[in-house]
Amino acid sequence: MASTILVNGSPGESISALDRGLAYGDGVFRTVRVKRGRALNWPRHYDRLRSDAALLSLRVPEERTLVTEIASVAPGDAVVKVIVTRGASGRGYAFDRTAPSTRVVAAFPVPAHAEAVAIDGVRVRRCDLVLSRQPRYAGAKTLNRLENVLARAEWSDPEVAEGLLADEDGLLIEGTVTNVFVVRGGRAATPDLSRCGVTGAQRERVRDFLARERIPCEVRDIPFAEVLEADELFLTNSLIGAWPVACHGGRRWARGEITRRIQALIEAEDA
Amino acid sequence: MASTILVNGSPGESISALDRGLAYGDGVFRTVRVKRGRALNWPRHYDRLRSDAALLSLRVPEERTLVTEIASVAPGDAVVKVIVTRGASGRGYAFDRTAPSTRVVAAFPVPAHAEAVAIDGVRVRRCDLVLSRQPRYAGAKTLNRLENVLARAEWSDPEVAEGLLADEDGLLIEGTVTNVFVVRGGRAATPDLSRCGVTGAQRERVRDFLARERIPCEVRDIPFAEVLEADELFLTNSLIGAWPVACHGGRRWARGEITRRIQALIEAEDA
Repeated sequence: MASTILVNGSPGESISALDRGLAYGDGVFRTVRVKRGRALNWPRHYDRLRSDAALLSLRVPEERTLVTEIASVAPGDAVVKVIVTRGASGRGYAFDRTAPSTRVVAAFPVPAHAEAVAIDGVRVRRCDLVLSRQPRYAGAKTLNRLENVLARAEWSDPEVAEGLLADEDGLLIEGTVTNVFVVRGGRAATPDLSRCGVTGAQRERVRDFLARERIPCEVRDIPFAEVLEADELFLTNSLIGAWPVACHGGRRWARGEITRRIQALIEAEDA
Repeated sequence: MASTILVNGSPGESISALDRGLAYGDGVFRTVRVKRGRALNWPRHYDRLRSDAALLSLRVPEERTLVTEIASVAPGDAVVKVIVTRGASGRGYAFDRTAPSTRVVAAFPVPAHAEAVAIDGVRVRRCDLVLSRQPRYAGAKTLNRLENVLARAEWSDPEVAEGLLADEDGLLIEGTVTNVFVVRGGRAATPDLSRCGVTGAQRERVRDFLARERIPCEVRDIPFAEVLEADELFLTNSLIGAWPVACHGGRRWARGEITRRIQALIEAEDA
């Protein structure tokens, strides 16, 4: 059986205990859905990996290297996590810009989601944790993810699919594992992620789809209260595609037309 | 030769590629100076480790386990890094509160510092990077240290020993690897770390020393401008003890009386 984890291209389950990814979260990652051996939405994933790494002055592996390694660990259906760190070093925050990075390419089973969820939608909550602002690497999917860990720990009710997060000004930013789109009066909007949050590859694709469909989509500050005023609300990431939000607090929504259209476009491209 | 790295008590150089310390920076650490086999300031280190971990609902190893392992990797003089993570898991931010943690205890050589530095003092700069605010785990020495990595990357001049960091309100918080004390008119102050920053074990000891010496020391918001108005400025961490700041921009200081007194108290206790 082929290995499901490659570390710097070699089958292995471990990394150096001195890796800066462990020591400082000094690295970036992506979570990619692979379907029948095809890495979905791959060009946007690689583009984000490269731009996120550039914010950290971190070297990224060649695209063909990652493509080959993803194909190796995930010949069929899988979720593949790609981690790129600044590699092992001694103590100290200072780093050598020429040092080789460490890459981990690991395949996981595709999580089972009830099919009805994409139609009926999901219940969300608002998290108490307030996202911090770090414009230096906002938007990047870095290995510094403690906020997400603690936000996700706020609830255990399996009926709640996602927690929404706001910043200290009460602006909606994202879900713990998703980006968020709000729709009102036929116009979409998704939060500006220049101060906090993670720019998902699916978010970028959905923005492209909305543009292609000539549905206006602003990237802007969205006060959390706009969530309750939305005609439609949907969540995106690379595993779920787009999920309608059905319920937040006392507010309920049926799946909307724009959500449905986006889901159809994702499905068609990923088929 | 004894191993210089123990992973969960066993000699080893590696951890699981699926460890949450790597994936999310989901853990905490301490950097301890060991002198002739004695872990200096140990009770405060363990106390901080425990309280930092509590903020993350993370289990910490028993004190005697760590003491034994530190003694094993560092029978003489060393810097020992103790990392505690939430251990390996599959994908996803949610965690099992009963899962075993991963601990890494690793010894490194003591860095060589010119002896004169403790007397003549060091040059510091102000970093451009602005620290983000996360009151949920401010003060904790978590594995989410990208801000420190990027702040340290701002300068390469070996004459500059440390970079000082401020938050978005221009309040002095800390150095990249040190805590900071300012002294004026015989009174000391050190930044409030309830919104950002790392509470060093040495900072806590210095506060205790100041109290014992009946030198007032406030923990409060310190506008960065107070740095230039200080009679004395000194940096603390577990490796350097206390270093006087000699130079910041055009301002110069000679080592002050309170700095000297604190250095003597640290030296006496660590002798």
